[in-house]
Amino acid sequence: MRTCGLIVEYNPFHNGHAYHLEQSIRKANADVTIAVMSGNFLQRGEPAITDKFSRTRAALTSGVDLVVELPHVYACQYADLFSKGAIATLDALGVEQVCFGSESGNIQPFLDGYNKWSTGKAVFEKTLKEALTSGSSFPQASREAYRKLNLTSDNFDLSQPNNILGFSYVKAIKELNANIEPVTVRRTKSHYHDEEIEYSIASATSIRKELFNQHLMTTHAKQAMPQSTVNELETYLQTAGRWHEWEGYFSLLRYIVQVTPIEGLQQIHGVIEGLEYRLKETADKVNNFHEWLELLKTKRYTYTRLQRVFVHLLTQLKAEDMLKATETDQVPYVRILGMNEQGRSFINKQKKKMTVPLISNLQQMTHEFLTIEERATNAYYAIIEPEVGRELKKQELTGPILL
Amino acid sequence: MRTCGLIVEYNPFHNGHAYHLEQSIRKANADVTIAVMSGNFLQRGEPAITDKFSRTRAALTSGVDLVVELPHVYACQYADLFSKGAIATLDALGVEQVCFGSESGNIQPFLDGYNKWSTGKAVFEKTLKEALTSGSSFPQASREAYRKLNLTSDNFDLSQPNNILGFSYVKAIKELNANIEPVTVRRTKSHYHDEEIEYSIASATSIRKELFNQHLMTTHAKQAMPQSTVNELETYLQTAGRWHEWEGYFSLLRYIVQVTPIEGLQQIHGVIEGLEYRLKETADKVNNFHEWLELLKTKRYTYTRLQRVFVHLLTQLKAEDMLKATETDQVPYVRILGMNEQGRSFINKQKKKMTVPLISNLQQMTHEFLTIEERATNAYYAIIEPEVGRELKKQELTGPILL
Repeated sequence: MRTCGLIVEYNPFHNGHAYHLEQSIRKANADVTIAVMSGNFLQRGEPAITDKFSRTRAALTSGVDLVVELPHVYACQYADLFSKGAIATLDALGVEQVCFGSESGNIQPFLDGYNKWSTGKAVFEKTLKEALTSGSSFPQASREAYRKLNLTSDNFDLSQPNNILGFSYVKAIKELNANIEPVTVRRTKSHYHDEEIEYSIASATSIRKELFNQHLMTTHAKQAMPQSTVNELETYLQTAGRWHEWEGYFSLLRYIVQVTPIEGLQQIHGVIEGLEYRLKETADKVNNFHEWLELLKTKRYTYTRLQRVFVHLLTQLKAEDMLKATETDQVPYVRILGMNEQGRSFINKQKKKMTVPLISNLQQMTHEFLTIEERATNAYYAIIEPEVGRELKKQELTGPILL
Repeated sequence: MRTCGLIVEYNPFHNGHAYHLEQSIRKANADVTIAVMSGNFLQRGEPAITDKFSRTRAALTSGVDLVVELPHVYACQYADLFSKGAIATLDALGVEQVCFGSESGNIQPFLDGYNKWSTGKAVFEKTLKEALTSGSSFPQASREAYRKLNLTSDNFDLSQPNNILGFSYVKAIKELNANIEPVTVRRTKSHYHDEEIEYSIASATSIRKELFNQHLMTTHAKQAMPQSTVNELETYLQTAGRWHEWEGYFSLLRYIVQVTPIEGLQQIHGVIEGLEYRLKETADKVNNFHEWLELLKTKRYTYTRLQRVFVHLLTQLKAEDMLKATETDQVPYVRILGMNEQGRSFINKQKKKMTVPLISNLQQMTHEFLTIEERATNAYYAIIEPEVGRELKKQELTGPILL
């Protein structure tokens, strides 16, 4: 049984994901696919458009065999920590390969890149630090550091988001000494940040933009997603009364920033360098989330970084809560969100060999990551009517979803 | 210039307040009346129906000469601490008398009562403590302790809310050694807790109930208030889009309780004896504030006590924030909310003699009570549209209101 891991957000699952899934299965010659999926908050610091359960069902219906959760402490983080959590999860499950999309579809430059990076680590760190000190944002600084190591050539360009994530996966595999083979497929022509849907392959960003603008399912959006995703999105909208986007959390975030004392804000993960004061000063000058982000944005504070801080504020994730995630290389458990028959037989085979517990609901074990998961869930559903939110939350205690 | 202090909430200012004002002026033979008024959150643990500025304007228009703010740290507290803050404020201003409503309108039983209480303090404390230990609520326990000292006779009944507050004022005057003479007028027949408006004299509770039920001004409510209050209430509703009641804060409170870690809840003033767990357990079982309160209510946790805890949760008031308020007998400043000509000449006369600063806006001095005041203001307006809330909040930085 050849296994292939995918690291995903499926926000929402679209035709590009379906294509990537198909290509990955082919390239990895896989019998079973395992997706490590972010929960309700995502890597770039955003609430997911629908909850993790809705997105799990969409993924299973579209052919993923097993969906496991990337713990919240890893999900809304910079690429390296995000990747560590995802790779450690796949490794704990004994997955043999991980397949990601890249610009070239060729794994060799990633492996060579890792060797260059690994031997030039001292130069990399020094360049990064200097660039950060001089006021660059983290992405700019790391681009500069990669350039120093000749890791931004045409052939292997680490200024491309997909390449950066892929390279982080490769680094994580090597650094964790994980028994996983990295595989890459060439990504389709829609670019990660594209904002408009043009063809049946469109970026998740452009699909969300369309849906949030219209507040309902459109023909335009439909053509970019499998019918199962369309159904899930429509059902969620009908049930919860909304799709989740930052604007919906604005008044809550404003309250948090205005009423939490400065010392409280300072404890939040990512609130450093006086950001607590900038947050307080700007909170009462803006009328919506978008305006707030624009006002906070500087060369140094990228949108992504600021959005992650907002996730941490909303979920009250403190810097001290992150110690366990940053200091250990193992995940404390693997949580199954859903699976089909194929996924189930994989799990049955693996569970005897696994060294960490396999769980499916939040109350199956006690761990601080799960307490944080529960907080993140409560924060995510805070903008939903109580009766409905309560029903949706029940899925955290039942499950896994079986297809 | 004979001065008379009043300790008020004016939530909202109604005909009974007007009558009490008139009676007090007569009884105290006063040339100038000074009201110490709670800000946006009140003694029984509720948000005020309209903000402090709207209520100040109503009070001034109805003939109060000067309105000063009772700091938030005193405003939402049990009677003794509330009274200490109010009496200390009047004392700092050099006010000569304080006049309160009571069942009998006779001050002697209060003075005799104080002597009894003062000499029997040890018995009182012991009885109180035993009753609390055996599971009684604070009001029950203190009623029992007063009974032990024969302070619940027909002639002077400390089971009546108005008498309890009045007695607290007398105690505060004596304990603080304040240079204030207590005076009392007999209260009108509407009872404190009455829930229906029957005559032109109605309780504030019944007026609020009517307004919250109808969500607009009614003829019924109008007959119980001066026109100036009616105007203020209508203007506020038009401007802010709502009157403030707990239900409006429900989703915010639910978010706070669900997402704040247990250790965070434990730091909040009033969250003791495992209430943090009961709050967490019940948060997801209820659909509105009323249901939540009902579910939390026990013999020991009265509605008032629970509501105060909700104020402290909403304003993030920690137990440690209360130390300064409980440990010192002086107020650190007196903040003027508004005044007429008469009030202004009183202030001009007094300010040279005063030993604490006189301020009118939040930024005039730095003090932790003012930081807390700002937090309470932000929490109060958190449910108002940003543009409007911002305009309303400006009043914290301008002022005082001059009539």
